[in-house]
Amino acid sequence: DFEHALSEVTPAFGVAEEELQQVVENGIIHYSERVNEILKDGSLLVEQVRNSDRTPLVCALIHGPPGAGKTALAATIAMQSDFPFIKLISPETMVGFSEGQKIAQLSKVFTDSYKSPLSVIVVDSIERLLDWNPIGPRFSNGVLQALVVLFGKRPPKGRRLLILATTSHRSILTDMDVLSAFDTDMSISPITTLEEVGHCLREVGLFHNQNELDRCMQMLSESRFGEDGRPELLVGVKKLLSMAEMARQDPDPAYKLVSSLIREVS
Amino acid sequence: DFEHALSEVTPAFGVAEEELQQVVENGIIHYSERVNEILKDGSLLVEQVRNSDRTPLVCALIHGPPGAGKTALAATIAMQSDFPFIKLISPETMVGFSEGQKIAQLSKVFTDSYKSPLSVIVVDSIERLLDWNPIGPRFSNGVLQALVVLFGKRPPKGRRLLILATTSHRSILTDMDVLSAFDTDMSISPITTLEEVGHCLREVGLFHNQNELDRCMQMLSESRFGEDGRPELLVGVKKLLSMAEMARQDPDPAYKLVSSLIREVS
Amino acid sequence: DFEHALSEVTPAFGVAEEELQQVVENGIIHYSERVNEILKDGSLLVEQVRNSDRTPLVCALIHGPPGAGKTALAATIAMQSDFPFIKLISPETMVGFSEGQKIAQLSKVFTDSYKSPLSVIVVDSIERLLDWNPIGPRFSNGVLQALVVLFGKRPPKGRRLLILATTSHRSILTDMDVLSAFDTDMSISPITTLEEVGHCLREVGLFHNQNELDRCMQMLSESRFGEDGRPELLVGVKKLLSMAEMARQDPDPAYKLVSSLIREVS
Amino acid sequence: DFEHALSEVTPAFGVAEEELQQVVENGIIHYSERVNEILKDGSLLVEQVRNSDRTPLVCALIHGPPGAGKTALAATIAMQSDFPFIKLISPETMVGFSEGQKIAQLSKVFTDSYKSPLSVIVVDSIERLLDWNPIGPRFSNGVLQALVVLFGKRPPKGRRLLILATTSHRSILTDMDVLSAFDTDMSISPITTLEEVGHCLREVGLFHNQNELDRCMQMLSESRFGEDGRPELLVGVKKLLSMAEMARQDPDPAYKLVSSLIREVS
Amino acid sequence: DFEHALSEVTPAFGVAEEELQQVVENGIIHYSERVNEILKDGSLLVEQVRNSDRTPLVCALIHGPPGAGKTALAATIAMQSDFPFIKLISPETMVGFSEGQKIAQLSKVFTDSYKSPLSVIVVDSIERLLDWNPIGPRFSNGVLQALVVLFGKRPPKGRRLLILATTSHRSILTDMDVLSAFDTDMSISPITTLEEVGHCLREVGLFHNQNELDRCMQMLSESRFGEDGRPELLVGVKKLLSMAEMARQDPDPAYKLVSSLIREVS
Amino acid sequence: DFEHALSEVTPAFGVAEEELQQVVENGIIHYSERVNEILKDGSLLVEQVRNSDRTPLVCALIHGPPGAGKTALAATIAMQSDFPFIKLISPETMVGFSEGQKIAQLSKVFTDSYKSPLSVIVVDSIERLLDWNPIGPRFSNGVLQALVVLFGKRPPKGRRLLILATTSHRSILTDMDVLSAFDTDMSISPITTLEEVGHCLREVGLFHNQNELDRCMQMLSESRFGEDGRPELLVGVKKLLSMAEMARQDPDPAYKLVSSLIREVS
Ligand SMILES: Nc1ncnc2c1ncn2[C@@H]1O[C@H](COP(=O)(O)OP(=O)(O)OP(=O)(O)O)[C@@H](O)[C@H]1O
Ligand SMILES: Nc1ncnc2c1ncn2[C@@H]1O[C@H](COP(=O)(O)OP(=O)(O)OP(=O)(O)O)[C@@H](O)[C@H]1O
Ligand SMILES: Nc1ncnc2c1ncn2[C@@H]1O[C@H](COP(=O)(O)OP(=O)(O)OP(=O)(O)O)[C@@H](O)[C@H]1O
Ligand SMILES: Nc1ncnc2c1ncn2[C@@H]1O[C@H](COP(=O)(O)OP(=O)(O)OP(=O)(O)O)[C@@H](O)[C@H]1O
Ligand SMILES: Nc1ncnc2c1ncn2[C@@H]1O[C@H](COP(=O)(O)OP(=O)(O)OP(=O)(O)O)[C@@H](O)[C@H]1O
Ligand SMILES: Nc1ncnc2c1ncn2[C@@H]1O[C@H](COP(=O)(O)OP(=O)(O)OP(=O)(O)O)[C@@H](O)[C@H]1O
Ligand SMILES: [Mg+2]
Ligand SMILES: [Mg+2]
Ligand SMILES: [Mg+2]
Ligand SMILES: [Mg+2]
Ligand SMILES: [Mg+2]
Ligand SMILES: [Mg+2]
Repeated sequence: DFEHALSEVTPAFGVAEEELQQVVENGIIHYSERVNEILKDGSLLVEQVRNSDRTPLVCALIHGPPGAGKTALAATIAMQSDFPFIKLISPETMVGFSEGQKIAQLSKVFTDSYKSPLSVIVVDSIERLLDWNPIGPRFSNGVLQALVVLFGKRPPKGRRLLILATTSHRSILTDMDVLSAFDTDMSISPITTLEEVGHCLREVGLFHNQNELDRCMQMLSESRFGEDGRPELLVGVKKLLSMAEMARQDPDPAYKLVSSLIREVS
Repeated sequence: DFEHALSEVTPAFGVAEEELQQVVENGIIHYSERVNEILKDGSLLVEQVRNSDRTPLVCALIHGPPGAGKTALAATIAMQSDFPFIKLISPETMVGFSEGQKIAQLSKVFTDSYKSPLSVIVVDSIERLLDWNPIGPRFSNGVLQALVVLFGKRPPKGRRLLILATTSHRSILTDMDVLSAFDTDMSISPITTLEEVGHCLREVGLFHNQNELDRCMQMLSESRFGEDGRPELLVGVKKLLSMAEMARQDPDPAYKLVSSLIREVS
Repeated sequence: DFEHALSEVTPAFGVAEEELQQVVENGIIHYSERVNEILKDGSLLVEQVRNSDRTPLVCALIHGPPGAGKTALAATIAMQSDFPFIKLISPETMVGFSEGQKIAQLSKVFTDSYKSPLSVIVVDSIERLLDWNPIGPRFSNGVLQALVVLFGKRPPKGRRLLILATTSHRSILTDMDVLSAFDTDMSISPITTLEEVGHCLREVGLFHNQNELDRCMQMLSESRFGEDGRPELLVGVKKLLSMAEMARQDPDPAYKLVSSLIREVS
Repeated sequence: DFEHALSEVTPAFGVAEEELQQVVENGIIHYSERVNEILKDGSLLVEQVRNSDRTPLVCALIHGPPGAGKTALAATIAMQSDFPFIKLISPETMVGFSEGQKIAQLSKVFTDSYKSPLSVIVVDSIERLLDWNPIGPRFSNGVLQALVVLFGKRPPKGRRLLILATTSHRSILTDMDVLSAFDTDMSISPITTLEEVGHCLREVGLFHNQNELDRCMQMLSESRFGEDGRPELLVGVKKLLSMAEMARQDPDPAYKLVSSLIREVS
Repeated sequence: DFEHALSEVTPAFGVAEEELQQVVENGIIHYSERVNEILKDGSLLVEQVRNSDRTPLVCALIHGPPGAGKTALAATIAMQSDFPFIKLISPETMVGFSEGQKIAQLSKVFTDSYKSPLSVIVVDSIERLLDWNPIGPRFSNGVLQALVVLFGKRPPKGRRLLILATTSHRSILTDMDVLSAFDTDMSISPITTLEEVGHCLREVGLFHNQNELDRCMQMLSESRFGEDGRPELLVGVKKLLSMAEMARQDPDPAYKLVSSLIREVS
Repeated sequence: DFEHALSEVTPAFGVAEEELQQVVENGIIHYSERVNEILKDGSLLVEQVRNSDRTPLVCALIHGPPGAGKTALAATIAMQSDFPFIKLISPETMVGFSEGQKIAQLSKVFTDSYKSPLSVIVVDSIERLLDWNPIGPRFSNGVLQALVVLFGKRPPKGRRLLILATTSHRSILTDMDVLSAFDTDMSISPITTLEEVGHCLREVGLFHNQNELDRCMQMLSESRFGEDGRPELLVGVKKLLSMAEMARQDPDPAYKLVSSLIREVS
């Protein structure tokens, strides 16, 4: 019934792929060595699930600041696994769900995964799945408890599952004392050097010639981020790409981008 | 099906226009250069959504003190886009809705917008949509979570969406740690100079002759706002227009207006 | 359809008048110049709504200590407007209503008012409508949010609405940061001088002859309210009238009234 | 329809009388002059409602420590009014009622009373009706709000109503800022002198002869309540009567009573 | 209808007896004079209810630390009354009941009791009936309020009722300010002397010969409980009997018991 | 009907065994003498339930840090009892259950157990059954109360029950003041010495030759855990086995394991 399971999950796979590709719409820019390392770490986890008899379940936490690229990287790792069952659980598909409906949905995805010999589930943006709000704080304890139990629930004999959960609020998981639910975690850092910024701007072709890019880099260098008490350069790749697009509408894209970046980090 | 989508949303557009025009019933008075700048910034956002491939979704926050003109300006920017789908989401149409009903309504407007190639949604007065009350504080976390997710949800391929959200309580969004949901924000300032006050009073024709206006401005200047520890002049255009109308009923409109203004700022 | 609207609201008017008259059962005693001023201020608001094109909606807050006469004065102003739609919203008619039922009822009254060219709604005792309790504090945030939105919702084109809201807890509206919902406010002060007390007692005919009244006033004067750390004289007209009736049962009304007053203020 | 109203309420009256008599099962012992004064004050209130045109509604609060005799005295005043509608509202008849059911029940009794020309309603043990619990504190704000509104709601024209509410927790009404709902209040004090204790013991015939009573009083006097830092004598008549019955089972009633009293006050 | 009432309650009695006997499964060991005193005090209460006309309702609180024997003693007193209606209300029969169901059940038992001329109700473990949890604290205020009202509700004419309530958390009743609901209370103390321990061990026959018992007592005496800052001996009879049974499985029961006792009190 | 009861519970037994075996999938490694002691202590409890007439109910708490092996050991003790009714209650089978459904499920398992002459119930991970979250803290008081009552509820005559409850949050039971619900408790300690680590690694065959193992142990010894302010070695067997599997994928398993261990304890 291995064959049977495979055929059973195929349609689910097709649907998921589209969703997964959408979240990496702007591709993966290899602006730093760290990007490759994360993808490699991810494929090691994939191999562990594929090979080890003793750990049919591996649960990893991918965390980093807003817009650092967590969702895109988790989806990329998942797609590269080529496992027959790949599924993205995202808050976007659960707007307006009651707590009970959310838990039922989560539960269903996990139960579905148990039918495939090899599965990977991306649980995106845990803090949003929990309706986390620091005022109170308010959150859905029911969803949290369900996640923690599902993250630790061994799949049935002969089934293997990789869970990739993302969050930009790792500390709330510590406060909730549920970090032991994860076997390992991977940290995604934001862009912090001018070189990385330059790499990205070149990649998205914001400027029509090298001169403009040079002028832009020159202005950035003159902002002297992180010197003499000035704020450090620290921006997620997602935000940087968005700024580049706003700048593109401006008569003077270089100036617009630099001023956006300065306002962002201050 | 681009054509199809267009025809499908046309009726929605008609309805929305009426609502939008109603909230700028008293027109836009160009009492300061800042008013033009905001309208220009707004049309830049409109162009970004229309043109950029990489940012099919742009979400802007328009904030400022009560009565500063946020709703009127957001509606004006929306109307000037000439996008085929324009919709105003306002607390006024949701009085007595349960949290679930509000979220369903929000969700529906966004889903509707995804049918149009180009859409703009004005989400007016976020703090009222959330039922925000500083005592407690109390608010609908469900509505907030739905908004944050909808604000970040990419429209389907080939669809583009501009979101203009307004609030007079920007700080609660900071406290809730959801400011990263916005790509950019625009600040609407209140009226702070005697020249701006004079411009408005002339525009609404409160006085029948220049003498009366001069006398009024004279009295205002004698109040010496902001001097020697006196309170600063600081009034929203909405409130100023309302005071002008009250003054109009008075035998001595100039005196009435001045005393209202003084009481307001103290 | 102006005529139509008028005829449509007539029955509502009849009912309302009875309710309004009941709350001024003991009439308005002109014990101080301030009473006239408030009634005059009220009729200015009525004229503004009747005349100004720019402010089809005016919302005023009438506040003062318990029993100061807020309800009676609001009702009197409303009745004197002679608007075709006049309605009193009172907690008394909503005992045992759920939050949803209250909001539906409020909503209905406002919707009804939009059918009349000229309307006045008295929203009596906001703190009771909110089920306000300082312990906690507890209150219905839903009712508050509905009120704030309804207070700011422009009636449809060609309709005009005056809202007179009363409360003895103005400070909770400040704490809830909703005072900007009101265009103006009027403060009702309690009785604070012996002359005002005397005026009221004479008006209700507590004593059968001038001698008794003189003796009463003499005793009051000897109580030396507000002197040497003694408590100030400060009593609502409603309470004073109630004390007068209790005193009327007593063999020595003058003495009874004086001792009641002293106990009340201490 | 005055006649009609009277006949309509008669059955209700019959039922109520039985309930009222039950709560004064042990009669009223005139152990102190204060007992008479309270009954006289009560009948003054009855007369005010019967006679005054301006105060068709009077609401009095009867308060005192647990077991001081509040319920018995309120019921006695009510029964002595001879009003055609007399009703006791007691927590005992509402065990297990939801908040909504309680409010409906309260509302019904008041509505019923409006059919009688003259009515008295005893609202017994407000703190229990509210499910008051100092931990939290927890209580039913809904019931409180209903009571406050019903306490201030004028009966329809030609109807008159006396409300006698009892509580052993007057301070929570202060904390809830609803004391202004009462026109007046009466304080019931506990037993505080040996003479009063003696009066009660004689009345209930605890001892078979004067000797025994003398011995008991002697022992009590030797306990020197309130002297040298010893606790004051302070006991409700209800508790004292209960102690007397326990003592009656004992071989040495005098000794048992004295030791119970000492344990009670310490 | 006295006869009728008797026959009516007989079946209830039969059921109750079994339940009552079960909670004293291990009998009553007279390990100290205090045990007899409590049973005697209990029978005095029984006599008061049987005999006194003025107190047809007596409500007593039996309290003490966990495992002190509260339930067993309350049940024993109840059974010894020989009243025709005896009922044990226990949290064990209400697992999973909603608050409403619990209150309905409580209410039913009391209503049933009113049909018998003489009744005794054991309300076991009030803190568990209330779902008491010191974190929060959380508890069912509804159940508490129902109990307080039922504890004070006089049975109908000619009916008499003894209520024996147990708790190991007397202080929460003080905090909840409901101690005045009880006419009297009885304190059950734990075992505190080596003699009492020895008495119990002999009674349950833990050791096969006197030597072993002596050795055990010797070891206990050498533990020098309460000396030089060592913890006091303080153990409920229930726990002691449980320890004895564990010790019985051990090759060296004396040593096992001593070490258990030491660990328990530390 | 002893025979009958036995046959009745047989099917339940079959199901449970599979579940129980699954939680000890990786077997029990006897890495320390303490492991044997716990299994022996467990079988003493089994014997007490089987033999003692006075304690037909024994409730033990098994506690220790996350991953220490609590579930596996509890299941092993349960399976070794050979009682006809063995059941594992686990949060994994209750994902998405409402509080009421959880309590009903718990209740059913206990009621089922009462049909068997000898039963053992493993209540796994109490903190997860309670939905415990330290933020707030939030938890299901209903489930806790049900557990406490079920843990103390004597099975019917002739039935005997052993309860093995596990938790990694023993302190919350102390805070909730419910520790007296347990007759005894057993503490499971994590791995703390290099010898124990070595024992486990050998057992799971992480290295292909002794050299590699030696190199690994050498590196561990050079980490000097617990010396000079370095963190102590402290890891659950579950985590250690998981680390071994991750290391197995690495080209240099020894290095990978050592670095994982260092990161874990820091
Ligand atoms: N190296 C990269 N890593 C991740 N994303 C990249 C990279 N290069 C380009 N991108 C693009 O940047 C965007 C990253 O956005 P993504 O939604 O993954 O960020 P995120 O951290 O999940 O944001 P959020 O905190 O809002 O959830 C995507 O559009 C992705 O295509
Ligand atoms: N320059 C201007 N900008 C905005 N509004 C203007 C301007 N000139 C005139 N107005 C008029 O002032 C009013 C502004 O009210 P608007 O409701 O937009 O304020 P707001 O800031 O949204 O108030 P609130 O805080 O109550 O939501 C409108 O009637 C509008 O027609
Ligand atoms: N000058 C006056 N102003 C107001 N009320 C007056 C005046 N003279 C007499 N009255 C009478 O005094 C009473 C005032 O009571 P009213 O209910 O209006 O007070 P209130 O401030 O609304 O009280 P509450 O705080 O309880 O709502 C009415 O019976 C009214 O007829
Ligand atoms: N002078 C008295 N005043 C009141 N009650 C008296 C008096 N003399 C005897 N009694 C008897 O004392 C008892 C008083 O009990 P009652 O229930 O009225 O007290 P309470 O203050 O309402 O108690 P609680 O605080 O429990 O509600 C009644 O049985 C009543 O018959
Ligand atoms: N003198 C005694 N008093 C009470 N119980 C005794 C006595 N001697 C023996 N026992 C036995 O001790 C046990 C006492 O347990 P019981 O359940 O009554 O204690 P408890 O105080 O109600 O405990 P908990 O605090 O858990 O409710 C019973 O099994 C009873 O048979
Ligand atoms: N001596 C041992 N004791 C317990 N478990 C062992 C032992 N040796 C090997 N194991 C294995 O280690 C794992 C222990 O995991 P288990 O789930 O029992 O830990 P746990 O303490 O219940 O974890 P959690 O805190 O997550 O509930 C099981 O796979 C078990 O087979
Ligand atoms: Mg993301
Ligand atoms: Mg606005
Ligand atoms: Mg009023
Ligand atoms: Mg009473
Ligand atoms: Mg007990
Ligand atoms: Mg476990």
